[in-house]
Amino acid sequence: MPEFRQDPVTGRWVIIASERAARPRQMVAANGSASSEPCPFCAGHEAMTPPEVWAQRDSNRGADTPGWQVRVVTNKYPALEDGGEWTNRSDGFYRWRNGFGVHEVIIESPDHAVNMGALDAAQFVNILRAYRERLRALKNDRRWRYLLIYKNQGDRAGATVEHVHSQLIALPEVPKQAADELYGANKHFGATGRCIYCDINRRELEHGERLVAQSERFVALCPFAPRFGFETWILPWHHAAAFEETSDQDLFAFGQILREFILKLNRLFDNAPFNYLLHSAPAEDSAAKSYHWHMEILPQLTRAAGFEWGAGVHMNSVAPEDAARLLRQVTL
Amino acid sequence: MPEFRQDPVTGRWVIIASERAARPRQMVAANGSASSEPCPFCAGHEAMTPPEVWAQRDSNRGADTPGWQVRVVTNKYPALEDGGEWTNRSDGFYRWRNGFGVHEVIIESPDHAVNMGALDAAQFVNILRAYRERLRALKNDRRWRYLLIYKNQGDRAGATVEHVHSQLIALPEVPKQAADELYGANKHFGATGRCIYCDINRRELEHGERLVAQSERFVALCPFAPRFGFETWILPWHHAAAFEETSDQDLFAFGQILREFILKLNRLFDNAPFNYLLHSAPAEDSAAKSYHWHMEILPQLTRAAGFEWGAGVHMNSVAPEDAARLLRQVTL
Repeated sequence: MPEFRQDPVTGRWVIIASERAARPRQMVAANGSASSEPCPFCAGHEAMTPPEVWAQRDSNRGADTPGWQVRVVTNKYPALEDGGEWTNRSDGFYRWRNGFGVHEVIIESPDHAVNMGALDAAQFVNILRAYRERLRALKNDRRWRYLLIYKNQGDRAGATVEHVHSQLIALPEVPKQAADELYGANKHFGATGRCIYCDINRRELEHGERLVAQSERFVALCPFAPRFGFETWILPWHHAAAFEETSDQDLFAFGQILREFILKLNRLFDNAPFNYLLHSAPAEDSAAKSYHWHMEILPQLTRAAGFEWGAGVHMNSVAPEDAARLLRQVTL
Repeated sequence: MPEFRQDPVTGRWVIIASERAARPRQMVAANGSASSEPCPFCAGHEAMTPPEVWAQRDSNRGADTPGWQVRVVTNKYPALEDGGEWTNRSDGFYRWRNGFGVHEVIIESPDHAVNMGALDAAQFVNILRAYRERLRALKNDRRWRYLLIYKNQGDRAGATVEHVHSQLIALPEVPKQAADELYGANKHFGATGRCIYCDINRRELEHGERLVAQSERFVALCPFAPRFGFETWILPWHHAAAFEETSDQDLFAFGQILREFILKLNRLFDNAPFNYLLHSAPAEDSAAKSYHWHMEILPQLTRAAGFEWGAGVHMNSVAPEDAARLLRQVTL
């Protein structure tokens, strides 16, 4: 069973999930040749994964058979497990908790695509719909206080299976990074009566230098203080706290700007490794006015290193104004 | 000129250093063959680096010539620069500051060693003495509020030059990670009258399961809540806040336990990539009783990925009890 453990000095929580060490590392080798192991995420190999918890599939086909477009399964090597009680434990000095949560995998194509850029616009909508439906379903379970969807694209970004997929983690507590954002957004709202992300959108539109792309409903921009080179955020122009309330029409528009960004990044850097994460207001929270859902795309072109781990401060050698200009200049 | 920039939502500072993008990436290629570029850190190539700021060298040789054992130079592609005033700037929404600081490189061998494990015990002492002397010198400059020495060993750990080296950064403010440690240590001291690291040492000695190695003066242990697989801390057994006050005799003992650890790690994982960082009490601080200097060694066997960046919580698939047992079992 995985465990949350707390560092006694800093109060930082980590997840210790020893069972995950057993998971296969099925990645394209450095020379570009694909692994010869059968891929557990390809259509026809449904028996290689835990049973599906959700799928978009042809109506005449049963669960865990081919005929799906997007398929969601429990992670076979979960970092957190949905079982038992969420209990604080302590020996009087150290503190830990059982690794209580949900860890799902969203398989983003029935075919063996290894880069999201290979998928068409319709498939992007299918994927985003899967995100929305899983968030909606898990939000109804009041045990989960925070839901995070994230993607690791490429070995350098931490992917251990090459077939395109994202992951969803449901946590019994709001984690640090999300808590910091919620706190800052709430503080700004208290001081100004406005959503800070709406303010960012407005300023970046005026400024223009950090805009990457825009459509009627969405903007892609390089943030003022990015941790990573070419870090880009996609936000709805208009205030919206929770991604899972997005309409079908907006999912389509979001998919368009996301897909275009990934194609541009791949044009600049051959199969660029990246992480992305979807930050949405937590389940039970007063963040409806102060928070604003967004996706953060974090290219992994260089590596966080000793300085980042030792100081907690990221060093980034690409100014966001340069990154945005280069991304704007790419023609697809 | 580099810049500090602050994220308006979370308050997180980053360093934007565009000039660093120009730095060469002189690493061993994936197929293991060394780069054919001349190495700027090898003896005889002193003209390829900025002038040395400190060196341990044969007494009859002048600066910036061969005859040195350890050589410290200003980073040619600095993340921070020592010039001008430390000024807050703001446009009423975003905040930034000039990238004020010092960024040095400690070249750890005159020969082209690519792994610290290739160096002998005497050279470890030379390296640690260089750390001590640079920290002592920079601590006298009251503009610097925090000094961090760190190492990136191997491409996967963020090294961009393969020749063994560490880096030193002097900052005009205590950065987040250090502030979190100092705060936690101070809080524990306020509540108990004891140093929290001394308490960790005592508990780990009693417990035993997470001990990796020990000598009369030092202990190497896997911390209770490690961020990375095989993460190991080396601490002096007895209370000592500042590394730069370490005696020659203790430098030797520290070098011994550090070298032995690196050799063991290299035995377990062929040329294991790792970061290490030296956390010492800051220059002007009341931390003498509450803080305890230590080195954190962070192997980079897997990668921080979307979950870590999105949640701010590390997932680690190696329990520290397992890591410590495996490290104890290695015979050199």
